Amino acid sequence: MGRWQPDARTRLERAGLELFEERGYEATTVADIAAVAGLTERTFFRHFADKREVLFSGSTVLAEVMSQAVAEAPADATPSEAVRAGLAASASFFDDRRAHAGRRQAVVAGNPVLLERELMKMATLTDALAGALRGRGVAEPAATLAAEVGVLVFRVGFGRWLEEDRPMGEVFDETYAAVGAASV
Amino acid sequence: MGRWQPDARTRLERAGLELFEERGYEATTVADIAAVAGLTERTFFRHFADKREVLFSGSTVLAEVMSQAVAEAPADATPSEAVRAGLAASASFFDDRRAHAGRRQAVVAGNPVLLERELMKMATLTDALAGALRGRGVAEPAATLAAEVGVLVFRVGFGRWLEEDRPMGEVFDETYAAVGAASV
Repeated sequence: MGRWQPDARTRLERAGLELFEERGYEATTVADIAAVAGLTERTFFRHFADKREVLFSGSTVLAEVMSQAVAEAPADATPSEAVRAGLAASASFFDDRRAHAGRRQAVVAGNPVLLERELMKMATLTDALAGALRGRGVAEPAATLAAEVGVLVFRVGFGRWLEEDRPMGEVFDETYAAVGAASV
Repeated sequence: MGRWQPDARTRLERAGLELFEERGYEATTVADIAAVAGLTERTFFRHFADKREVLFSGSTVLAEVMSQAVAEAPADATPSEAVRAGLAASASFFDDRRAHAGRRQAVVAGNPVLLERELMKMATLTDALAGALRGRGVAEPAATLAAEVGVLVFRVGFGRWLEEDRPMGEVFDETYAAVGAASV
């Protein structure tokens, strides 16, 4: 009592991840997650549509953060410069979440249903970034292509960042250069 | 009678695609597909694990064709040259299937469950190409990166090829150049 408690949403996310790690995703129920978080199922469903979303609601926030940074990039930025601004914004989003991000990634990679969902979220992120580019006046197919390359760099760079304790922005820059080299 | 009939597998694929277009994917059963193909459910399950596979068994063949071409690329080919050889092999795979490929794509794009599966198949293709590159002595992360870029070019180029009546190889070359330009 009186001890600081994170908000309900964060508690549910932590409880869900813990249970998915311990018991496996399939064997964990919403009731389990709510109980471990010290909350009711009703509260759970106020925050998440289903147990899968405990792992994916961050993706929606991430897409918003990145799209906004693309929209707000300097007017004279090229499409890839604008996308890079989006990636830079994601770096600050992840800076203080390395441990959580690594555990989450391991759970997702271990379950085909979650992996399919993750790939879908990446496709949604691509659409969001392409939309933000079109909002800057970038025509198709250039907008989608710049967004696709950005999300490829994000995915590959993110994996490397989880393995190597280096600033995410640095890893993104290297990955962009590597994609350029691999497309010659 | 005496009239040429395509083999059972092809008949089931055509019947499945037709029914998914007409009734929707969810409303179509394996029994429906078998009936339209003039075959039994038992024959269906000899060829496909479930109704979804009617749309995706081609992906497995494609991954094999492309991986083999990567493996057989000249010994002095760079990783991206070897991947390009894989893409070139896919072009001949699709040459005489434009109409079918376009209809299939429309069905997949219209259903989130199928779209998730499609993305998963692309991830599997990436793994297969990266594996073929490692078989050529390419180290990581270069192998995965070259494979990722190749599959990105494949996905984007494939969509463009469906819209424009041009040789697939030409579209792939353009898309490679566009990815290079978008990664600067």
